[in-house]
Amino acid sequence: MTSSHFRYALAVQYAGGDFCGWQRQPDVPTVQGTLEQAASKLADEPITLQVAGRTDAGVHAIGQISSFSSSRAPETRNWQRGLNALTPKSIHVSWVHVVPTEFHPRYDASSRRYTYVFYDQQRTDPFVAGLAWCCDPLNVDAMHEQAQCLLGEQDFSSFRGAGCQSLTPMRRVDRVWVRRQGAYVVMDIEANAFLLHMVRNIASGLFSVGRGASNTYLADVLAARDRSVLGVTAPPQGLYLSQVRYPNVVLPEVTALPSILRA
Amino acid sequence: MTSSHFRYALAVQYAGGDFCGWQRQPDVPTVQGTLEQAASKLADEPITLQVAGRTDAGVHAIGQISSFSSSRAPETRNWQRGLNALTPKSIHVSWVHVVPTEFHPRYDASSRRYTYVFYDQQRTDPFVAGLAWCCDPLNVDAMHEQAQCLLGEQDFSSFRGAGCQSLTPMRRVDRVWVRRQGAYVVMDIEANAFLLHMVRNIASGLFSVGRGASNTYLADVLAARDRSVLGVTAPPQGLYLSQVRYPNVVLPEVTALPSILRA
Repeated sequence: MTSSHFRYALAVQYAGGDFCGWQRQPDVPTVQGTLEQAASKLADEPITLQVAGRTDAGVHAIGQISSFSSSRAPETRNWQRGLNALTPKSIHVSWVHVVPTEFHPRYDASSRRYTYVFYDQQRTDPFVAGLAWCCDPLNVDAMHEQAQCLLGEQDFSSFRGAGCQSLTPMRRVDRVWVRRQGAYVVMDIEANAFLLHMVRNIASGLFSVGRGASNTYLADVLAARDRSVLGVTAPPQGLYLSQVRYPNVVLPEVTALPSILRA
Repeated sequence: MTSSHFRYALAVQYAGGDFCGWQRQPDVPTVQGTLEQAASKLADEPITLQVAGRTDAGVHAIGQISSFSSSRAPETRNWQRGLNALTPKSIHVSWVHVVPTEFHPRYDASSRRYTYVFYDQQRTDPFVAGLAWCCDPLNVDAMHEQAQCLLGEQDFSSFRGAGCQSLTPMRRVDRVWVRRQGAYVVMDIEANAFLLHMVRNIASGLFSVGRGASNTYLADVLAARDRSVLGVTAPPQGLYLSQVRYPNVVLPEVTALPSILRA
């Protein structure tokens, strides 16, 4: 990178069902690959994106923050228009913003927020099947109450996916709530960072609670520090990366609520 | 049809984006074709479906009522399960119900109800792009007020699509309202029947009203009895066939609200 480089942050939304996750891979559609191809074409030079919160296949994002450097300095509005014009409808760039050259979306982030959406009306729904987990009716009060045991700095081994490369199973959950919103049940969780599949495994545990598990179920799972005590990982289509916080840089706001919850 | 035949009605929901409309056509996926293939397999005999409200390509249904006859008499619950098992996720059969042998979903219907959903927050949204018309901000009060000129038995030639085979342009609109529901604007309209593209053309006219057309715009369009005074037909992805009424037969209830409006 030379001193003539400009640094940009962008906020991106995507419907994950069309992609094999964020991270660039050969021969399959990924969000990173699709955006880098569009940005490279606009800049007429190879562009590489950094990101906070590499999502898995099928997982959505509403307020994901990514960043890149370029020797070109078009108006940020033209970057945004160009990226939206050159990417499919399932990706939407909300804004592009000039940031300090040392900005890194992953290392500068102080916390990540995820939203998991259950639709507990019928097990299949043609309209929200790709946007929520369609399941049997849930007891929301029990879910919210038991979720509070996750707060604070703790060992989340029980909710850690196989293949997780983190050096430690310790994470700090700052906030978690579960509430009903009409026909939907919404779990919202914020932490300094998450282990692989951690949110979907928490959603799986809370699903069991909502279906009638004992009132110490989630605390027992957490205390076991053993992934095998928990059921299957909740499906990706209910999960949205909703917000990433940067205490030391001012960025435009993003909408943190999934569109299907905005009625 | 022999006297040994049983008559069934079914309520079906579908996400229209996966289909070239309701009506069976060779070599393309249609809702009728998909359902008939599944029903024929279950019954082990050729099954033909009748319907009220043949939807166009891309249009959704929530409470569409269809009907068929069969010499087989499985439990209606088994019909429903079998049809859902043999059709893709984009189709959902809510119930199957035994009806009198003379029941016909089209001729026995007294009215049809359609819902058109606008999402006036941003022109593209990866999550609702296939479930609503993503557009610029709308003035809902003006839309509701002007929509009332459509009430009653009138000549709807201005809202009639080319190729409409109806013998008359007269239709009776019983009820129409437009209201905001969070980030969405919802138009709901009920009539004895509709002309080809009539609801989408009304949505187009109301869109112009919502964007600032004069306060006699819709009445002027209606009075012209000329399709050419109106702009382009509103896109199919905002349209839901939501309810069909049968005054002379008792059927289970259907949910008439699009899932994205149930938050």
